[in-house]
Formats: sequence, C-alpha cells, structure tokens
Amino acid sequence: MKEYKLPIGCDVPETIILADGDFPFHPLALEWLRQCPYVVCCDGAANTYIRSGRMPEAIVGDGDSLLPDIKERYASLIHSEAEQETNDLSKAFRFCLSQERKRITIMGATGKREDHTIGNVSLLADYMEQAEVSMMTDYGIFVPIREDSMFESYIGQQISVFNMNSTALSAEGLAYPLSVFTNWWQGTLNEALARHFIIRTEGKVLVFRVF
Amino acid sequence: MKEYKLPIGCDVPETIILADGDFPFHPLALEWLRQCPYVVCCDGAANTYIRSGRMPEAIVGDGDSLLPDIKERYASLIHSEAEQETNDLSKAFRFCLSQERKRITIMGATGKREDHTIGNVSLLADYMEQAEVSMMTDYGIFVPIREDSMFESYIGQQISVFNMNSTALSAEGLAYPLSVFTNWWQGTLNEALARHFIIRTEGKVLVFRVF
Repeated sequence: MKEYKLPIGCDVPETIILADGDFPFHPLALEWLRQCPYVVCCDGAANTYIRSGRMPEAIVGDGDSLLPDIKERYASLIHSEAEQETNDLSKAFRFCLSQERKRITIMGATGKREDHTIGNVSLLADYMEQAEVSMMTDYGIFVPIREDSMFESYIGQQISVFNMNSTALSAEGLAYPLSVFTNWWQGTLNEALARHFIIRTEGKVLVFRVF
Repeated sequence: MKEYKLPIGCDVPETIILADGDFPFHPLALEWLRQCPYVVCCDGAANTYIRSGRMPEAIVGDGDSLLPDIKERYASLIHSEAEQETNDLSKAFRFCLSQERKRITIMGATGKREDHTIGNVSLLADYMEQAEVSMMTDYGIFVPIREDSMFESYIGQQISVFNMNSTALSAEGLAYPLSVFTNWWQGTLNEALARHFIIRTEGKVLVFRVF
C-alpha cells in the first residue's frame, strides 16, 4: 500500500512549479521555495519569485505577465509555447517532464479566480499519469491517488476527499464514511480519528489534508 | 429558454447569504451587500458585516466564531442548529427557505481553504432544486443550470463550465466547444464570442462568468 507522510514531515521537494495564483504565504511553503533546488515559474509568478532574490530554472508562458525589466533581463530563461489548448501550469508541467523531473510539487495554483482554482486542482488527476505530483496551498496539500493508500495523520486533522472517477471508495480511520460521491461537497469536512488513515479506491480520487 | 443578464446589469438581490470565507472586496459585491434588504450571515461573517455598520436578518451557526461582544449583543439574531451533517452555508440556506426566500445570492463562500471553496461552489447544484440561486465572488458569478439557457455577454468575456451530471452538453457563441466533460478543468478558459451565448444541457451544469 502506498504511504504518505504528514506534509510537515516531508523532505523539501525535488521540483516545484510555482503557478500564477496567490503567491504562497504559509511558512512551510516559503521554506520549501527557499530550499528547493529546481523551481519552474509560470509567467507572472516569476516577478515575485525573482524579486524575492531567487532565480528560477525556467519561466514558462508567453512572457506577457512578466514585468518589462524581468522579461528583458531573464529572457534566456523564458520557454514559450504558442499552443493555446492548455494553461501555463500544464505547459510548466510538460517542461518539467521534458527535463526528466518526475516528482513535482505545485504551489501558487489557487486563489484569485475560482474557476482557475477548481481547474488547477483537477489537473492533478491528469498529471498523476506521468509523474508523482502534489499541490501545496496555504491551507494544506492535495494528492491524487488511484490505489489504496495510507496517510500519516493526527487526531482531528481535517480531510476532504474528491471523487474524480472512482467506482469503489471507502476509508478506515476517518470520522465519516466515504462512498462513490456524485457531488463535490459530499467528501468534504471529514476528519482523521488517529495517527493514520487509509483510503481504498478503484479509480482516481483527490485527497486534501490541512496542515 | 431561460435568460441571464450580465451581473453588472442585475437588480440588487432580494436575499443574500454571506458565508464565512473571504469577505467580498469587489465594488459590485459591496454595493449589493449595502443595498440588499435581507442579508443572512454565517457565523463568523457576521463579525465583519456588523462592524461595517449593518445589521443582518439572522446569524446562522453555533455562534462559536462570533466575537464575544457581538455574540452577546446580537444573541436574539442567532439561529443555531446542532446538526453536524451540513455546513453553516447549508444551514443558512435552509433558514432562508423557511422564511420563504426563494431567490438567493451567496457571497463570501470562497477563499481560504480550497476544499471549502470547491465544496461550497458545488452546493449550488443541490440548492437549485429548491430555490433560484447564484454565487457571487470577487471575480464573477456562478449559476447552476439544468436546461438550455441564454446568457447576456460581451466579446471576450471569460467563461468556465463545470459538468455536474449533464449527459448532453453543447454551446453556441463560445470560442471552444463543450462536451460531456469528465474532468473539471476541461470546461475552463472558454470565452464569449458575442453579446450572447447559449448553453444546451441535459443535466446539471455550473456556469462561471467573470465580471
């Protein structure tokens, strides 16, 4: 069974994609951003990241959201793709794959427009086909799973489970039972009863754990 | 065919539920909150609302998030329900129904924890069974539909469509075709081509239009 540590106990990610939603403010997110050796920024996110004194491996996007001085000075880092079918986050993900980065944490992908937030979160269910992905927000971590998984936890940890295409869904160690939910809210507001919980699934599920 | 105006052209809502996410900052949201004759606050939202000089019709929740002085002074407005199966937003919605309020705009239901945002947005698909509902955020408006609908629009208006249980989905007047999407992101990043667009559906869909 696949096992997941508490976020607070995880190592610094090997690769971070910093998307152009709200810039992270959670201390753990900022610490990871500082320590991570390989950070790829979506367009607009590079402005704040570079101004905080760091240098991304690459800036993915058409450069339209870059400040003029940053666009000029860091032109060599910009990887643009004309293709309009996917958003900058997906372009950054593809770039990371092309660089053989296979364990990727996404940050800055929520906040601002809610349709972008919902869309970005759901992309994890696609990305999991090609890499080990998670999304860190200022409130917790989303991970996509499609097999039985055990999560390190603590009593009372708030947990939400979103059914993407699971046809059999249950849990051990959560306060409320899981089932094959048909509306998004149905798997929210759950909580851990002990130091571990298990989710059993046939199909894809997104698991959100607050810090 | 059901028709929807541009948000900016709508009348002030008859009823607003102010939930306990981020307090609205969009000027239209603040204007509606000021003018609306019937505002129901979820617990914590009442603190900011009352401090801005207004008085809600009711405060729904267990009162735990109210500031002590507000809790004492406005005790008569508090409607608490011990039931733990639904969140304060759903309790406020039920309260409004009990008061014969059948046209309801929800505000303050996004921001902060992303699982709450996703859950709250999806509740519209349930609430539509019992009332005419919409959700206004600082970026746009979500409405749930389950029949062919025409939306007033403008060229380039950003539109996202989320399939809740639709089995036939198409559009006229949008840049990209709709289909029976299976992942949330697939209906995002669309845009209006003219001053109206039409969505045809068999089943429930959430439509998000930016201002």
